[in-house]
Amino acid sequence: MSDDAKDARHQDRMQRKKAVVDQKIADAKTRRGVLLVNTGIGKGKSSAAFGVLARALGNGLSAAVVQFVKNRSGTGEEAFFRRASDIRWHVMGEGFTWETQDRERDAAAARKAWEQARVYLADASIDLVVLDELTYAFKYGWLDLDAALADLAARPPMQHVIVTGRAAPQALIDAADTVTDMDLVKHAFKAGVAAMPGMEF
Amino acid sequence: MSDDAKDARHQDRMQRKKAVVDQKIADAKTRRGVLLVNTGIGKGKSSAAFGVLARALGNGLSAAVVQFVKNRSGTGEEAFFRRASDIRWHVMGEGFTWETQDRERDAAAARKAWEQARVYLADASIDLVVLDELTYAFKYGWLDLDAALADLAARPPMQHVIVTGRAAPQALIDAADTVTDMDLVKHAFKAGVAAMPGMEF
Repeated sequence: MSDDAKDARHQDRMQRKKAVVDQKIADAKTRRGVLLVNTGIGKGKSSAAFGVLARALGNGLSAAVVQFVKNRSGTGEEAFFRRASDIRWHVMGEGFTWETQDRERDAAAARKAWEQARVYLADASIDLVVLDELTYAFKYGWLDLDAALADLAARPPMQHVIVTGRAAPQALIDAADTVTDMDLVKHAFKAGVAAMPGMEF
Repeated sequence: MSDDAKDARHQDRMQRKKAVVDQKIADAKTRRGVLLVNTGIGKGKSSAAFGVLARALGNGLSAAVVQFVKNRSGTGEEAFFRRASDIRWHVMGEGFTWETQDRERDAAAARKAWEQARVYLADASIDLVVLDELTYAFKYGWLDLDAALADLAARPPMQHVIVTGRAAPQALIDAADTVTDMDLVKHAFKAGVAAMPGMEF
């Protein structure tokens, strides 16, 4: 085929595609707060939440972050967001379960973190709430899933929420508007590359 | 089982898990720049890149972003990162293929964007280079994959690169250190929810 013919065929295809896309955009009229869930075993669940957080703050939205497992303040992302905005950021975990080795302490930390989360889920002046690594609280039975889902459902109608963590329970996926499963294809760590500042924390 | 027995069993399991995790961390000694690829049809590929970008900047790293498809400056994330850092940010695309409907114009834009990317890939003072939506340049044949892989391989040894976009070619996945496939479980847009500022742009 000549280049002119290729160009013409491309243009024809793209005109048809544009009609389909434009119709889909026209059909998507609802405006409301959405519940995003980033789950799966791959890298990117929390990072994607923080990327949306940057986008939201750049659009003038207000936001709050509650971290359910991490117990160390001063990560790169927290430092950056605090420098650049008046974000509410709460590091409320006790660290990985294999570090604490204490089921009751982990559960108590999760309950306290949820109380903090509920403050924001009841506050219509907060446009986006990030609940980082929340799913582990359900996986390990630290929090009651039904009660948490009820709090999420009762939040202000325009408020967005992002939940991250492996193994999101089915009821949470059912309640969500957008769900991404981040699957591990390969990871540098498995090839012997250390976790490095800026990339992993 | 009594609560005490449960607690003891939990502690025992977690002690063994900690030993495994600690060994893995001890084995991962290599320190070098990594190539991350975020691909798949789900939401989160670019967001995750921008989340790592926030983390990197928070750790004092320097960074540059080249966007290969987007043609509109002033997105939420660009606004936020510009406000908060001295980041280099280049919006160099011509928009979606079905908007331009012009194959040659799309290809020329991609070649120009790659020339900009190469400047950073040759500059050891840039710690992280984000090549957003680069994969489409290979999918549509705008760029030569082998030449691009050679440029990536020749970059400074401590420089990190993140490539995003659907349908990453196998040779790029082979060259990468960490690859996440972001799979679409569900998306609010398909349920009729409009793209909203802060969430989608």
